[in-house]
Amino acid sequence: MSAYPTSPLAVPLPALPAVPGVRLASIEAGLRYSGRLDLTLMEFAPSTTVAGVFTQNKCPGAPIDWCRSILAKGHARGLLVNAGIANVFTGKAGFETVQRSAEAAAKAIGCSAEEIFVASTGVIGEQLPYQKIVDIMPTLYQQLDENHWTETAQAILTTDTFAKGYSLRTKIGTETVTIQGIAKGSGMIAPDMATMLSFVTTDAKLPASVLQALLSQKVKTTFNAITVDSDTSTSDTLLLFATGVANTPDITDPSDPRLTDFATTLEKVLKELALLVIKDGEGVSKLIEITVTGAINDESAHKIGMSIGDSPLVKTAITGEDANWGRVVMAVGKAGEPANRDTLSVSIGDVWVAHEGGVLIDYDRETVAQHMKEETIKIKVDLNLGSGKATIWSCNLTKGYIDINGSYLRS
Amino acid sequence: MSAYPTSPLAVPLPALPAVPGVRLASIEAGLRYSGRLDLTLMEFAPSTTVAGVFTQNKCPGAPIDWCRSILAKGHARGLLVNAGIANVFTGKAGFETVQRSAEAAAKAIGCSAEEIFVASTGVIGEQLPYQKIVDIMPTLYQQLDENHWTETAQAILTTDTFAKGYSLRTKIGTETVTIQGIAKGSGMIAPDMATMLSFVTTDAKLPASVLQALLSQKVKTTFNAITVDSDTSTSDTLLLFATGVANTPDITDPSDPRLTDFATTLEKVLKELALLVIKDGEGVSKLIEITVTGAINDESAHKIGMSIGDSPLVKTAITGEDANWGRVVMAVGKAGEPANRDTLSVSIGDVWVAHEGGVLIDYDRETVAQHMKEETIKIKVDLNLGSGKATIWSCNLTKGYIDINGSYLRS
Repeated sequence: MSAYPTSPLAVPLPALPAVPGVRLASIEAGLRYSGRLDLTLMEFAPSTTVAGVFTQNKCPGAPIDWCRSILAKGHARGLLVNAGIANVFTGKAGFETVQRSAEAAAKAIGCSAEEIFVASTGVIGEQLPYQKIVDIMPTLYQQLDENHWTETAQAILTTDTFAKGYSLRTKIGTETVTIQGIAKGSGMIAPDMATMLSFVTTDAKLPASVLQALLSQKVKTTFNAITVDSDTSTSDTLLLFATGVANTPDITDPSDPRLTDFATTLEKVLKELALLVIKDGEGVSKLIEITVTGAINDESAHKIGMSIGDSPLVKTAITGEDANWGRVVMAVGKAGEPANRDTLSVSIGDVWVAHEGGVLIDYDRETVAQHMKEETIKIKVDLNLGSGKATIWSCNLTKGYIDINGSYLRS
Repeated sequence: MSAYPTSPLAVPLPALPAVPGVRLASIEAGLRYSGRLDLTLMEFAPSTTVAGVFTQNKCPGAPIDWCRSILAKGHARGLLVNAGIANVFTGKAGFETVQRSAEAAAKAIGCSAEEIFVASTGVIGEQLPYQKIVDIMPTLYQQLDENHWTETAQAILTTDTFAKGYSLRTKIGTETVTIQGIAKGSGMIAPDMATMLSFVTTDAKLPASVLQALLSQKVKTTFNAITVDSDTSTSDTLLLFATGVANTPDITDPSDPRLTDFATTLEKVLKELALLVIKDGEGVSKLIEITVTGAINDESAHKIGMSIGDSPLVKTAITGEDANWGRVVMAVGKAGEPANRDTLSVSIGDVWVAHEGGVLIDYDRETVAQHMKEETIKIKVDLNLGSGKATIWSCNLTKGYIDINGSYLRS
């Protein structure tokens, strides 16, 4: 998809089998790109429930407004996704585009427009030519099939350098179900902004309230625990659809013990998809895993972790393969969360390098220097104040990031 | 000072005349560097009052702890500054270093150690060899003179690419006074973190409470309104000394109308010094001036301005000379402050490009494209919600930043 070289951390797309209750297809609609798939429709069984989380950006795109407004019903029959134009900052016309597109999909599927979720990714400030979507919808609908996951994982990309998907099986009661998702991000296309989209489906039978509770809980430690460049997109969308086709027991409480395996597996799928996004972070050459322990609570640990993961000085030090624990201390301190310099310890690659307010004079510099050459850099901070903990993932900051985001006009 | 080329936005050091009541000198103490001035002493007249603001980082250096503890007395006889070692994350030994150094300066000047302010800049995690400071103090003291400002502006630098100072005259009542300061930042030296120091002196006679009120007020629109890379140093220090040598009227209220000119001039000096720091921002090639109006209040406008100025996507777009208003909208939205996409307007180079939720189709693209080639890029955002406003300054993000902070181990 991208004009840039494939990320060195790219992961091959695994086999993505059919998910009972989901049919899908992607097509060349010529919305902005030519010669590639750019419009995707998923159709869900009538029993499908849905949960979602969206960008916290105060200037969201029109599709975000649409999805938020229909999510409360907890029911979905379709998902329409286009790549190329994000439909952000497009005023009333942008909202009309969403409505007309949803109506076209609803007509094909035979449901109401309020059962169609919509997501767009690409340039902002440009109007989406919705008539093209309306016109091509019957053809797109004809192509729906259970086995189009691979091409759909491709069709939602913009400047991503590889397609991202993951699939696991788990059980609810004695019934085996699939949890399978695709994601795109964090590509950039001039004059665009980073957009993260992820769509996860399962054939489990779960009420929307349970689904939303699980998603809201698991997103904290997965998608909300990653950062590429601290810039929150206007289009971030994560949707979880449960088709209810599997013969799983009726469950109404998200803390029902029969959901333990499902919840754990959901977290694994979300985490893998989130890490795939980081592994395609702009200009990335190293994944950074930051674990904060001993904070006053988990939320505080999370904020401190994100402060480290967002710090340009930490990220460039890792590009330089420099075990610069001083910058980690700085980033802890700037987070604004309770932290005490004199109880703070920092480890890099599982070697404690700084402890209780000072460097450990005799730490194993050779082991740490070796670790800095690896593809995944592990940083641990123990604040020694309480039992709050969190892990977040980031990527390093390289000249590739500047190339992608600052030099495209000259290329 | 720096191994990197002089900033293209460098400003020649102006003439820095004597400030009555201030004697100063810099010397080669060989603390970490060799062959350059690295230790500075300023001696202030016995009538000198002082005000200060320090880093909000929760892991501050030992000199910050020291200055904070003695600031309450409001009185100063000396300032001791070293470059090369920041004395940060150095535990109890680091605090002892500050104490011993202050005692040595106090002995030379003939005052108590609690009247000596101390600042350090350079690498972190390394102990400062304070015995060298103690040993060289009598020699340094002998060299004190009213006319050493130029060499002192050099002596406090680390990887800055040019020396920074500014001097203005103003009146309190009928008496003319000088406000003159020097600054360093935002250099970097492996394995260091950005440090901003600024020392401003005046011969005005003002109680510490008045001085502190003026400084705290004026720092908001100057030093606290700049950002290079969002990383808050552990050592940021801004000290304002008033020697009281000038025969200015006795003033006890910071809002006394006789202080209007002085306050305005102080703001001008602080603003110029702050802009000089930005103009030496790592890898800088463009200064960015961001004005936010129509916010619900000034604080909210400030936060939104900083969110734009800190955004890697905005900063790289400006490197690419791309009038990417979409990224500005994104950065407004991610600030978390009240903002309404549908009332928002954005101007670049004084041309409105986006208005009330959509792009202005016919905006003068040629004029905007010309502006993007200039050295100072002006961005305005009008939220149209209230009367809050703020201006902040940032710099662009270039490969030079990665070179300085990520590649030094290989150079």
